[in-house]
This record gives sequence, structure tokens and C-alpha cells, in this order.
Amino acid sequence: MIKILAPQSTIGIIGAGQLGKMLAQSAQKFGYQVATYDPNPESCAFAVSNWHQVGSFDDEVALLDFCKKVDVLTYEFENINGELLKKIESIVSLPQGTSLLLHSQNRLKEKSWLNSIHIKTAPYWEINSLEDLREALLQSGYPAVLKTNRFGYDGKGQMVIKSASNLADSNLLSLVNQNCILEGFCDFITEASIMVARDQYGRIETFPISENNHQDGILFTSQAPADFSKEITDAITQSAHQIAEKAQLVGVLGIEFFVLNNQEVVVNELAPRPHNSGHYSIEGCNVSQFDQHILAVSGRPLAAVSCLADAYMINLLGQDLDLIPSIWHDYPEAHVHLYQKGEAKYNRKMGHITLLNESVAHKHTLTSRFDR
Amino acid sequence: MIKILAPQSTIGIIGAGQLGKMLAQSAQKFGYQVATYDPNPESCAFAVSNWHQVGSFDDEVALLDFCKKVDVLTYEFENINGELLKKIESIVSLPQGTSLLLHSQNRLKEKSWLNSIHIKTAPYWEINSLEDLREALLQSGYPAVLKTNRFGYDGKGQMVIKSASNLADSNLLSLVNQNCILEGFCDFITEASIMVARDQYGRIETFPISENNHQDGILFTSQAPADFSKEITDAITQSAHQIAEKAQLVGVLGIEFFVLNNQEVVVNELAPRPHNSGHYSIEGCNVSQFDQHILAVSGRPLAAVSCLADAYMINLLGQDLDLIPSIWHDYPEAHVHLYQKGEAKYNRKMGHITLLNESVAHKHTLTSRFDR
Repeated sequence: MIKILAPQSTIGIIGAGQLGKMLAQSAQKFGYQVATYDPNPESCAFAVSNWHQVGSFDDEVALLDFCKKVDVLTYEFENINGELLKKIESIVSLPQGTSLLLHSQNRLKEKSWLNSIHIKTAPYWEINSLEDLREALLQSGYPAVLKTNRFGYDGKGQMVIKSASNLADSNLLSLVNQNCILEGFCDFITEASIMVARDQYGRIETFPISENNHQDGILFTSQAPADFSKEITDAITQSAHQIAEKAQLVGVLGIEFFVLNNQEVVVNELAPRPHNSGHYSIEGCNVSQFDQHILAVSGRPLAAVSCLADAYMINLLGQDLDLIPSIWHDYPEAHVHLYQKGEAKYNRKMGHITLLNESVAHKHTLTSRFDR
Repeated sequence: MIKILAPQSTIGIIGAGQLGKMLAQSAQKFGYQVATYDPNPESCAFAVSNWHQVGSFDDEVALLDFCKKVDVLTYEFENINGELLKKIESIVSLPQGTSLLLHSQNRLKEKSWLNSIHIKTAPYWEINSLEDLREALLQSGYPAVLKTNRFGYDGKGQMVIKSASNLADSNLLSLVNQNCILEGFCDFITEASIMVARDQYGRIETFPISENNHQDGILFTSQAPADFSKEITDAITQSAHQIAEKAQLVGVLGIEFFVLNNQEVVVNELAPRPHNSGHYSIEGCNVSQFDQHILAVSGRPLAAVSCLADAYMINLLGQDLDLIPSIWHDYPEAHVHLYQKGEAKYNRKMGHITLLNESVAHKHTLTSRFDR
């Protein structure tokens, strides 16, 4: 039985960072009330929420108390432990579900599940010791990437192993004592991602594919719709449908791909929520990834996605904020989003810029202002 | 000296209805803090404000206290008395200014100012007594429209006089004892409006013209860009530039026109703030009227407006809300905005729907669902 959320009902969002803020703004536009939960008392989504609660993601009492007060729950933060999620599901409707979340919390599970539904990934090996690593490297060769199974994002919790000499590196030794995987290096020509949405009626909608550029493991720029061959476009779109269908996705899922020299694509990572590389959809599409996510968790049908403009997105990190006044001045057509996250720490995502249509012509001059 | 509002500064908004809410959402997106002021403790903009203050628009102490706590002030509510506005301007930056506001508060002043800058209006006569009215009707003929000079909106404070027999009507007698104008009836073929924005550097940008349909004096639908002849389009656009320039507008101004049989246009009304007939710009344009208004009052340059989609907007009134679930179901591509204003009173504006591109083909079937 699908629960269609009535106007003025309350959507609870676990996590009140920028994704929570943009989800809240969509929900507010649609006429829902929004409650957000986050340990950081300065969370940027709080200002656009009807009410909020400050609490740790591990504080079971506080989190369950929050869940009791909302009509439907969603999350922008995915590292909540599985047992707690089961308790949450017994209290409040969580249309997004937990199975995709639990898979995506663990790189090993994620890759093995993807392979089980015939989605290609980079080759990988489970690593629980230095011994495992030495053995895996015999097969993977160099370079290869060692990644913790859990809690890695924006390039954290991972290390490129370029040669046997890295095996004595102290960072490597601290990583290898956690549960890790070794990923064979993908000799990719570019990176891509797609946002796929699925509603509670089983309808699947994909957003235009974006071509991404990371620096230091952090997304720097995205261009959409990406100018890929039909072969690559079809492969990515079909993978997205397959994953959304098999996972019985409800809401939005971001899928990152490596595009290989031979025109094959392999999945790099899943993010079971709106994703940084889909921010361009706010201005570039008829509905944004945040809109679609709210529609899906509200029990409403998705909108058919159409692309209204070519878009180019640049992430703004803490060290970039001094550039804002000159960008405002020099690029009045640029859509400069600032999240108001407080302290502008180095490499912390503080906002993003979207260029549309004719303005995309300025992408090189604008991008060159940033020191990456 | 133009004050460019730094990120995280606070924009104060007088009035926290749906216009305040949509202004606040733009400001939040841009990285500003928002404070709103309104007498209604259930105001819908409060939930998307960093902080708010409940107070009467006539409560000088409370309003001045509010102004002291914000970095720049704007208003979505225009009936604040002139003396209070002067005090406000001595306390806080009010880039929007007061002169256009003071003109638009009074139909007589507004029309006489428009005529003084060579902008055509309907013929009008100042009415302070039944005697004045009888005399004016000799010139205007029937029908003609009697309107209070101040505080009229959505068809309130006005009455169509169809024949001399109406002169005994009790509603007419209560109107005529206020300061009024009599407007000669415009035999218009359609109604139009344009949103014009001007920034503090003097740059003027107009949004695509919308063609409007009112029912009971309340806006029902808007279509943009309107399918007008070049002659009409140019006349409306030139009037908008002329008014924005002469008024030294800062922010957004909505201008309503009557389009006459002879292809002439006359100005019906000014609204010195974003306007209901410009809501389509949220989805239909690269920047919305709310974005442009925030850019202008923040001392930033306007964006060049471009139209991303054909758009058709339908207002949702209190009596329409029962239709929402079926509209959600039957028109998944419709952008249904609900303001969360509390009680769904008859004829109270509670939300709006925007159709884009292919969906505009459904405008007749959707519009026919509403009893107007």
C-alpha cells in the first residue's frame, strides 16, 4: 500500500548538510513541512527546516525520538548502522528502504552485489591483512588502489599503491588493518555519472549523464548532458535502469562510472541519495534530482525528466570563497550557490556554480580561476 | 556607493506570505541569511527564514527593531505608511527605495505619475464624493470602474458601475466615501504583464511577457512567453524600460497591461515587487523573478534573462485544494507549488501550478478542473 504524503505532512531528513538543504528546499516548495536531524548544531539545512533536532547519528534514543515525530523519513547521510535502521523502519515509513544503503556502506558488498546482477566494476580483492594485500597485488599489478570498505568519501580512506615500496608506508599500514578492498587500476579515459530515480509505482527516470572531473579525489566539475557516443550513453543508462530495478530503488541514486578506452563502462561507486554531480539539474532540467527524490519518497509519481539547458557545474571548496565577489561581478549569469556551512575549511564543499547554455562557453576561463 | 552584500549577511523581508517565501528561498540558495517580519504568526515564509519576528506593519517600535538587526531590507508587502518608511531608510539600507512604493500605494498618484512620463493608462477621474462620481460618469460613460485609491488587491475595494441604477447601491456608497478613482472601462482584448528588473548599476532586464486571465478580479492563469504581435511586445517592453528607468527601480516590478483592440497597450497597475504573473519564471527561465530581486537588492548585477521553456501557470485558491491529489496523480509533470499558508479560505491564494513545454498541451484539460 503506497502512502501518498498529504500536503503539510512532515518529511524527516537524516543529515542536514547541503544535500539536506536542497532536499528541504524542494519539499518546502511542494508544500511539505521539513524536519532535519544532524549532530552539527550549525547545519545548513536547519535554516530551511520547520524544525530540527541536534543529535548524533549513533544516538539511538534521540534518533528514534526524531523518527516518531515525522510522517515519512529519508536520509542524505548514509552511514547509519544497520540495526538502528531496522528499528527506524519499524517506527516510521522509510520508502527509500535500507538494502541499497547497507550495500553502499560497504565497498566489498557493493561490488559483489553489482557483479551478481551483471554490472561490471573494476576488479577487486578483499583485504584484511598485509598478506592479503601482497597476494592481491600479484594479480592486480601496479598501480592499484587500496580503499577502506566503509566511511570513505571525497578521496578519504584510500591510497594509490604505485610500487612495492609503498608497502612500508605508515598510511598504508593503518589502512590495511581496517577492512579494505584492493581495486585494480582502471585505465579510464573519463569519468561519468548518472542520477537515476525510481518511484513507488516502479517508474524509472534518469537524468542526463554528466561527465565529471575529480581533483584530489573531490569532484571539481561536471558537464551535462555529456557528449558521449551512443554506445557509452546506452551502456550507462541501461546500467542505471538495471541497478534501480534490481535494488527496487525508491528515490534518487547517484551512480559513478569509469569510461574505459574500449568504450566500456564500469561502475565505480553508488550513492543512494542525490549526488554532487547531479546538482546541475536544479537549473538544467525541468525537475531537479532533489524534486524527484521528494516526489518518490512522498509516494507521488516521478516527473518525466527533460533537459532544458546545457549545464556545467563547478564545486566551490573552502579555499575558493575569496573568489566569490569577483565571480559575482565577472559572471553575472553564473548561478552561484552557497550552502552557509560555517567554517570554510580547506577542501570542504561550500557551494557550487552552474553555468547554462551560452555561459558554458566561459567554462575554461572560470575554471582556471580555481587552484586545483 | 553600492553596498554588495557579503555571503551570510542577512536580508530582511517585510511580509512573509508566498512572495516572501519564494524570495527567501532564492536568498537561501545564494548563501544569504533571511529574516522575515509579518503580523501573522502562521506566515509561510517563516519556515524558510533563519529567524522571524511577528509584528504589525504599523508597529513602529517593532518594525524599527527588526530593521536594526538586518543588513539590507526589502519588502513584499507594499502598504507601509510613508513616514515609517522614511524612518526605516535612516536605519537600514533599503535599495528598493520608497518612491515607487509610495506611488503604487495610491491609484491616483500612480496613474498621474505614469501619464507624466508618457505611459498610457485607462482614463480616470478623482472621486471624493457622490457628486464627483456623477460628474465623472458623464464623461466616462458606462460601464466604468470605481476603485479605492489605496489597499485594493485581488478585486477587493472596487466595483463595476453598469448603469445609473448602481448609484444607489450600498457598496458603492461605502466606497465613494473613501478616496477613489473612477476608471473608464477599457475594452481590452486580453491582459498582459511583464516583470522588469533593474540593478543598482542601472542595468535593466525584462522577463518574457505573460498573457493573463483573471476571474473575479483574481489572477487565474498566465501563459509565457505570450504569443503577441511584435507591435504589442515592443510596446510592453518599451513601457517597462521607461518605467524602470524613470522610477530608478531597484529590484523587480510587476506591470499589468490591458491590450486593446487597436493593438495599443495601457498600464493597468504597478506592483513594486515580484508578482503572481511572474511565478512561471521559477521553472521557465534561467533565473526567476525572485532571484533577480535578491540579486538587485544585494548590490549584485542582474543576470541576462533567457527563456528555457514555454510555461503556463494556474493559481490555486483555497477552494481548489481538494483537487490536489488527483492533479498530482494525473499530471506528474506539473510543478505543483503549495505555500503552506494555513487555512484554505475561499479565494485565498494557496499555491500555483506551472506546466512546461509539452505539458502546456494539457492546459485546457487541467484548467477545466477548476471552478472559476
